[in-house]
Amino acid sequence: MRSNPKQIIILGGGFAGVYAARYLEKLLRSNEASITLINRENYWVYQPMLPEVISGSIGLTNVVSPIRRLCPRTNLIMREVEDIDLDNQIVTISPGFRPRQLQLTYDQLVIALGNITNFHGMPGLMENAMPFRTLADAMALRNHLIHVLEEADVEEEPELRRQLLTFVVGGGGFSGVEVMAELNDFVCSVKRNYLCLRNEPHRCVIVQAANRILPEMSEPLAMSAQRILRKRGVEIILNDRLKAATSERAILQSGTEIPCKTLVSTVPSALPPVIQKLNCPKEHGKLLVNTGLELKDYEGKVWALGDCASIQTVAGTMVPPTAQHAIREAATAAINIAAAIRGGRRMEFEFESLGTFGSLGHGSAVAQILGVKVSGLLAWLLWRCIYLMKMPGLNRKVRIAADWLLHLLFPPELAQTKVAFESGIRNQHFEPGDIIFRQGDLGDSVYVIEEGECEALRVQKGQPELLATLGRGEYFGEMALLSDRTRNATIRACNAMNVLIIPKGDFNKLRQSVPAFGNVFAELANERAVAGSTHSSVEPHPSNN
Amino acid sequence: MRSNPKQIIILGGGFAGVYAARYLEKLLRSNEASITLINRENYWVYQPMLPEVISGSIGLTNVVSPIRRLCPRTNLIMREVEDIDLDNQIVTISPGFRPRQLQLTYDQLVIALGNITNFHGMPGLMENAMPFRTLADAMALRNHLIHVLEEADVEEEPELRRQLLTFVVGGGGFSGVEVMAELNDFVCSVKRNYLCLRNEPHRCVIVQAANRILPEMSEPLAMSAQRILRKRGVEIILNDRLKAATSERAILQSGTEIPCKTLVSTVPSALPPVIQKLNCPKEHGKLLVNTGLELKDYEGKVWALGDCASIQTVAGTMVPPTAQHAIREAATAAINIAAAIRGGRRMEFEFESLGTFGSLGHGSAVAQILGVKVSGLLAWLLWRCIYLMKMPGLNRKVRIAADWLLHLLFPPELAQTKVAFESGIRNQHFEPGDIIFRQGDLGDSVYVIEEGECEALRVQKGQPELLATLGRGEYFGEMALLSDRTRNATIRACNAMNVLIIPKGDFNKLRQSVPAFGNVFAELANERAVAGSTHSSVEPHPSNN
Repeated sequence: MRSNPKQIIILGGGFAGVYAARYLEKLLRSNEASITLINRENYWVYQPMLPEVISGSIGLTNVVSPIRRLCPRTNLIMREVEDIDLDNQIVTISPGFRPRQLQLTYDQLVIALGNITNFHGMPGLMENAMPFRTLADAMALRNHLIHVLEEADVEEEPELRRQLLTFVVGGGGFSGVEVMAELNDFVCSVKRNYLCLRNEPHRCVIVQAANRILPEMSEPLAMSAQRILRKRGVEIILNDRLKAATSERAILQSGTEIPCKTLVSTVPSALPPVIQKLNCPKEHGKLLVNTGLELKDYEGKVWALGDCASIQTVAGTMVPPTAQHAIREAATAAINIAAAIRGGRRMEFEFESLGTFGSLGHGSAVAQILGVKVSGLLAWLLWRCIYLMKMPGLNRKVRIAADWLLHLLFPPELAQTKVAFESGIRNQHFEPGDIIFRQGDLGDSVYVIEEGECEALRVQKGQPELLATLGRGEYFGEMALLSDRTRNATIRACNAMNVLIIPKGDFNKLRQSVPAFGNVFAELANERAVAGSTHSSVEPHPSNN
Repeated sequence: MRSNPKQIIILGGGFAGVYAARYLEKLLRSNEASITLINRENYWVYQPMLPEVISGSIGLTNVVSPIRRLCPRTNLIMREVEDIDLDNQIVTISPGFRPRQLQLTYDQLVIALGNITNFHGMPGLMENAMPFRTLADAMALRNHLIHVLEEADVEEEPELRRQLLTFVVGGGGFSGVEVMAELNDFVCSVKRNYLCLRNEPHRCVIVQAANRILPEMSEPLAMSAQRILRKRGVEIILNDRLKAATSERAILQSGTEIPCKTLVSTVPSALPPVIQKLNCPKEHGKLLVNTGLELKDYEGKVWALGDCASIQTVAGTMVPPTAQHAIREAATAAINIAAAIRGGRRMEFEFESLGTFGSLGHGSAVAQILGVKVSGLLAWLLWRCIYLMKMPGLNRKVRIAADWLLHLLFPPELAQTKVAFESGIRNQHFEPGDIIFRQGDLGDSVYVIEEGECEALRVQKGQPELLATLGRGEYFGEMALLSDRTRNATIRACNAMNVLIIPKGDFNKLRQSVPAFGNVFAELANERAVAGSTHSSVEPHPSNN
């Protein structure tokens, strides 16, 4: 018997990572291998059901499963992977309570870190578009929806109310379509609880780059999905894509602008930085593996699977990034790792898709199973049955079935589960003509211009007067904060602008603790007050000298 | 028929506020009165069941109920109350998406804002003690417990592991006892899922100022609760209270220190600031009302109920701040408001408690009902039945019953539902001798001393050398951030210290956007580097000149 077990490290807790751990637990005894899985969360997300969190038809924690229970013999480390040293076989992990990194050495490594959302080159998306990948994203979206409904109910200005009731989803693939279907269902069914919104219309828009939604499916099915969604009031904009966003609207490539306070983006994606910086062969930006799923140049030591790997089957077809494929990849990798440790037959990856499903919410779906196309209620029932069967563990199956039953009987949940309001120092993007704040508003933040220009305007005796034009490196908004009064001018963006927002609380703390910081703004406010009282235009004060 | 309905505004959505709205909806027609309720959340918390969120025996959203469904004819405004002008009958409300306050006028006002946690005069409690009042608090505690268990499982240093596995609750009233009972149950049952914690002991401590826990109950029942808790391994420290706290430990009045990473405080409380600044008669710091629950000097216009009011029954006994009393107060106030609007008989408040319950978790409770004392399983079953019956709405009743059933069949939930990690600019407290960071640690923040002194030490050739003593207004920690290296010295508090922590991300954003801010630290780092390289002691650089 081997007394010194091999160290197997799995990076990532998605379908690929968790199933790899489960298969390895079955194939290898604990004296043969010690398995460690590293994941940012202590749970595994059942992605196909994640959109159901929005309407609450599945309870928040029932759509996820604790990794410790799925893989009872695996050591779980709930931290971030910071570095992979393939040559020295070391993985570096982010610090926990103590500010020290953890370094782990491995004999076999499984890289299954999936992909991340990447808004590079799309101004304002990072600040204003909500991603939809994790349980946290789903909860954040749900809480945001409740927030805009609450605000719309109070709002008296019709334009702002319309904007609060407009919901845009970028991306018309499975994920985008399912999110929009659930979102629309949720808003429709809870609107009746808002006294002022009952008879108010809302607007749902899907923006898709291709000439139809659901490119993963055959054309007739996608067309029938489009019909069903449109019948429910969802607008579908084709052959267009998100280009930019501000806190007030989504801006499309074609120039179309959609005023909205809710923007979800399910595209585009990129590899996590820790994989990007790996110096090993890649294809289409993904890790290149052989048909045994071994990383090129590191065969027998490193495997890559799931969305971060570029995989071809033995037959030569590219493997799509879906859950059913990830599970089969995990099985192949586990068998090959076992063979690398104790000898035995290696396996090559070959698996053809069994079918695809897309839920359209509200008792409707489209499905393509072993070549047969189904849509409507039958597809939806099949979808629920198959996914429920596939959910590992009796506990989850019973809980989800109970949730579905209760959802049929009672209206959806409406309680906001927001834990904390994010209000720290943050970036924001403005497009030309946008109002950053209005004369008379409460002063809640100070702004630093990182890019672009804006103008300060003051309305006096009904006449707007241009006070100053401000550019890169300049500040504004300090006067209302320092004097604790409302804004004495309106600020409007002249061109595309990126700013840093320092909220009042942080500004005051910094001002007290770092006098040099406070002085910058106090001096500026002084100068502007003098200039303002003589009715001359304010001379902006450059900060970077 | 009256064409101009009276405006009734209710402040607060606890038992008192929500039940007042419900009774008013029954008593008054919509052409007689328009009811508006203002609350920070869009849900009402069923306080008695809130501790069950910790172990997940009730689903996160099932312990709360959407106010819109409880009071379908009431306008809900999900904002904060910022000001009450009793003389002009105006309530000012915090801004929403647009930075403008909302002002509402009322004919009748119900103040039911409850109380808030107040750690005044207890250094470090604000930063390190978790309150337990709202759903957000309960979720935060649950997520924190999972976080410390995850970290304890990875931690190899026995002392830190013990600290991570120590849980302290300040306050031995109902709330404190129930939180500790649920917390202990949860940790006991999930520990087996952690490979390295299975056989590790954990420590649970209740700190209570009186000479017994549960002062709300008779002595024999409290004694039997103490016995039950102690049998389950909970330590009970009597005649002592929390005095201070750091991120590493709880410090009691007696001088006892308990190293821990989890500190919950259910005491002490104060009135919300918006009520404190009201210029009207108060008693024991609470709003003084007559037996008709009318605010003194504003009879017929303003009512105060719940935890923020000082109420005497007709018989002259003080009314305790419990849910059953709040519900009866709401009924009395609603009848009197209806009488003020349309005339009719007014009512005076008289109600004697029916009984009290304290859950001890795990199928055990203590109860005192109409004079009869019960403890153990029978009390627990009674507790569940009575509270379930009292929960308004069939939807909740069915959902909670389903949750309880599933909780009997399956282990508790273990998924962390953390949405965002708070990592902004924040305060922290250190006690004499505390290490703020260690030489060799990763540099993750810059510190500003707001109060107290600390010393910088460097270990060279095994010898610790004192580099400098730093005091109020001075900075430290900038070198590791500016050079992106690990800490080159250890910082130790000389006396009680309060610091402002600026995390790396915020520090770098500010440094780029406000050069004067960055210069302060760059100059300082330069000076210290020169001083350090010549092995002389670092001359600290005062910031406030």
